[in-house]
Amino acid sequence: MEPVNVIGVGMTSFGILDDSLVQLAEEASFKAMSDSLTLEQHFDHIVVGSQNPDEFVNKGHISTLLADRLGLVPAGATRVETGPSSGSSAFEAAFTMIASGHSDLVLVIGAEKMSEVDRGTASKILAKMMSYENETRYGATPTALAAMVARRYMHDYGLTRDELSLIPVKAHRNGAKNPLAHFQKEITVDTVNTARVVADPLTLFDCCPTSDGAASVVLASDALVHDLRLTDQAVRVLGVGHGTDYHAVQHRLSLTSFGATKAAAQRAYSMAKLEPTDIDVCELHDAFSILELVNMEDIGLAKLGQAIDLVKQGATEVDGQIPVNTTGGLKARGHPTGGTGVAQIHDIYCQLMQKAPKGLQVSSPVIGLTQNIGGFGNNMVVGIFSAP
Amino acid sequence: MEPVNVIGVGMTSFGILDDSLVQLAEEASFKAMSDSLTLEQHFDHIVVGSQNPDEFVNKGHISTLLADRLGLVPAGATRVETGPSSGSSAFEAAFTMIASGHSDLVLVIGAEKMSEVDRGTASKILAKMMSYENETRYGATPTALAAMVARRYMHDYGLTRDELSLIPVKAHRNGAKNPLAHFQKEITVDTVNTARVVADPLTLFDCCPTSDGAASVVLASDALVHDLRLTDQAVRVLGVGHGTDYHAVQHRLSLTSFGATKAAAQRAYSMAKLEPTDIDVCELHDAFSILELVNMEDIGLAKLGQAIDLVKQGATEVDGQIPVNTTGGLKARGHPTGGTGVAQIHDIYCQLMQKAPKGLQVSSPVIGLTQNIGGFGNNMVVGIFSAP
Repeated sequence: MEPVNVIGVGMTSFGILDDSLVQLAEEASFKAMSDSLTLEQHFDHIVVGSQNPDEFVNKGHISTLLADRLGLVPAGATRVETGPSSGSSAFEAAFTMIASGHSDLVLVIGAEKMSEVDRGTASKILAKMMSYENETRYGATPTALAAMVARRYMHDYGLTRDELSLIPVKAHRNGAKNPLAHFQKEITVDTVNTARVVADPLTLFDCCPTSDGAASVVLASDALVHDLRLTDQAVRVLGVGHGTDYHAVQHRLSLTSFGATKAAAQRAYSMAKLEPTDIDVCELHDAFSILELVNMEDIGLAKLGQAIDLVKQGATEVDGQIPVNTTGGLKARGHPTGGTGVAQIHDIYCQLMQKAPKGLQVSSPVIGLTQNIGGFGNNMVVGIFSAP
Repeated sequence: MEPVNVIGVGMTSFGILDDSLVQLAEEASFKAMSDSLTLEQHFDHIVVGSQNPDEFVNKGHISTLLADRLGLVPAGATRVETGPSSGSSAFEAAFTMIASGHSDLVLVIGAEKMSEVDRGTASKILAKMMSYENETRYGATPTALAAMVARRYMHDYGLTRDELSLIPVKAHRNGAKNPLAHFQKEITVDTVNTARVVADPLTLFDCCPTSDGAASVVLASDALVHDLRLTDQAVRVLGVGHGTDYHAVQHRLSLTSFGATKAAAQRAYSMAKLEPTDIDVCELHDAFSILELVNMEDIGLAKLGQAIDLVKQGATEVDGQIPVNTTGGLKARGHPTGGTGVAQIHDIYCQLMQKAPKGLQVSSPVIGLTQNIGGFGNNMVVGIFSAP
């Protein structure tokens, strides 16, 4: 397998934005091409992760549209969709293009513009990723499923409401320092506890927003890194893992542990020849507060039911032992679904390059991990990266 | 680059079908898994090519749904979309997974169910792949663009209406012998010439139908082919190329030659270390009759304006020098958009394995080629395969 490197990144602000999907993808991509000094280079391929541009913005086949708009014709152009993990699945597809030796330079874009449709329409579009037969037809929503996970987790492990609230509080504390975050203000445990209940026990502040935004990363072969003299900014991809679980939550082995994450993480660790204790900083898919705890356990940072202990000890803070979601996570950075997986890689790249926003830089991290959920745990993609 | 093999294939009938998208994908996939003797094997990944299941059948994130329904959990699951070339782009993504050494066994599915929405809705869904700013807003449709290509081709090269009609006549002659084809009856030049005009000069019989259907192929590494003792049914992937052109047709260099095809073919030939004269049989994307001629020229089978000479000589017939679309092409086999690229590989595999339907088998072909169009020439994927 040929080694694969991330050599530059770019990202728009996340939030409710005026720019179109194409404009957002352009902004993030030109930033990434500029950051990686590849504006003048020949790209072999662009891979676009986007959950549903056809319905969110009425545009189809956007990968070729973007190849044109970015001046990359005749590069191959592919869109990848795996629900909200579309961005990291696009990264995975691009990774294998270079790892195979079939390509030397590939642009990965993750982008979604969710605010052009009203909230009811957005919810209907997103609900298509769940099981209609087993879930949607009975009125289940992603938030309702997350509430079931939270209730079961509380029952099994004694997690309290106040403890769970520490997750969004940390997310907002970090987001407040991230100039690209959707939400840039701090909140308190009381803010979370007293907010409107969305699906008991989850309140508004346990749930990530729907956002607009895009992120791009440039992947390159070792040969190209050498030719372009970019060794100092080449973050190596050490591991990539992708796993699925049964489509309907009711068919899975556990409510409080996601088989797809475990499968993906196991594969990524095995490829990287690393263990959870080797991870210095990570971005986890906290679409709902409870998922940050579940994800921490499934990727091996804590035993079942014990992730909250790390949170309470401050271990997941920027200056802690294993910082989690230093830039605000989905909760505060925002969640333009197809954009999130690439934004996670963007942020881990910045951490490993010591370029995180002021107050968010982890002390000299060497190994970073990303974990991105598609559907409600239908699939997961895990990436492991090392500093130059 | 690790060698990649197609070790088995499966396909449903194409047509207006009762089965759901998921049922069609299941049928094709179980056939392919049975054909490749992998029903009991561990798949690393499934890659699904489908243009728009969200809008055609109201289902999202179908790759994970299919991983579940096919009993392949926890395999990674990815959907790929590049308009009507989604199937061959899914194949390309799966190819790089194995070529990189990251996977040993990958299932590729191409599927579309287009008949659950009415024709007007289907046209609107398909039109999203064109340039809104430059084409759709002025009323252009894929057929209208194809008509422009035909008019220009007639003007530049003197192609006549009777000559052009030979293309669909051949498609239907072959389709009549293909038990899986959407249309299984022969037509005449007169049938084409006197049919309702869709976009002058193109009549109904110059245009492929919208179809339901699915096709699947199983890709495996050399190591797995060896372990499973499948050398006799391992068709080697010699070349894969993907290219784009400017999104709007008006921005392109030529109306009668597609830059994306030339880029994709050049890359595939270069990888395969082969030339157009090495091709024994090919499947080309004849969504409109005129495109078969344009495609033949762009992949190097004839000089500009001269493809019709080969057709008139009978060279593109099943028993000719370079048989084209032996199973009916998009015109007669049908065109379930995301399914087509994989169906082309299915049919080339059958040719190279000497398993084509009765009356359609080419005499001992060694090298086969597929060419699949996304959008109206926005992108192309070309594959080159060799017999076991």
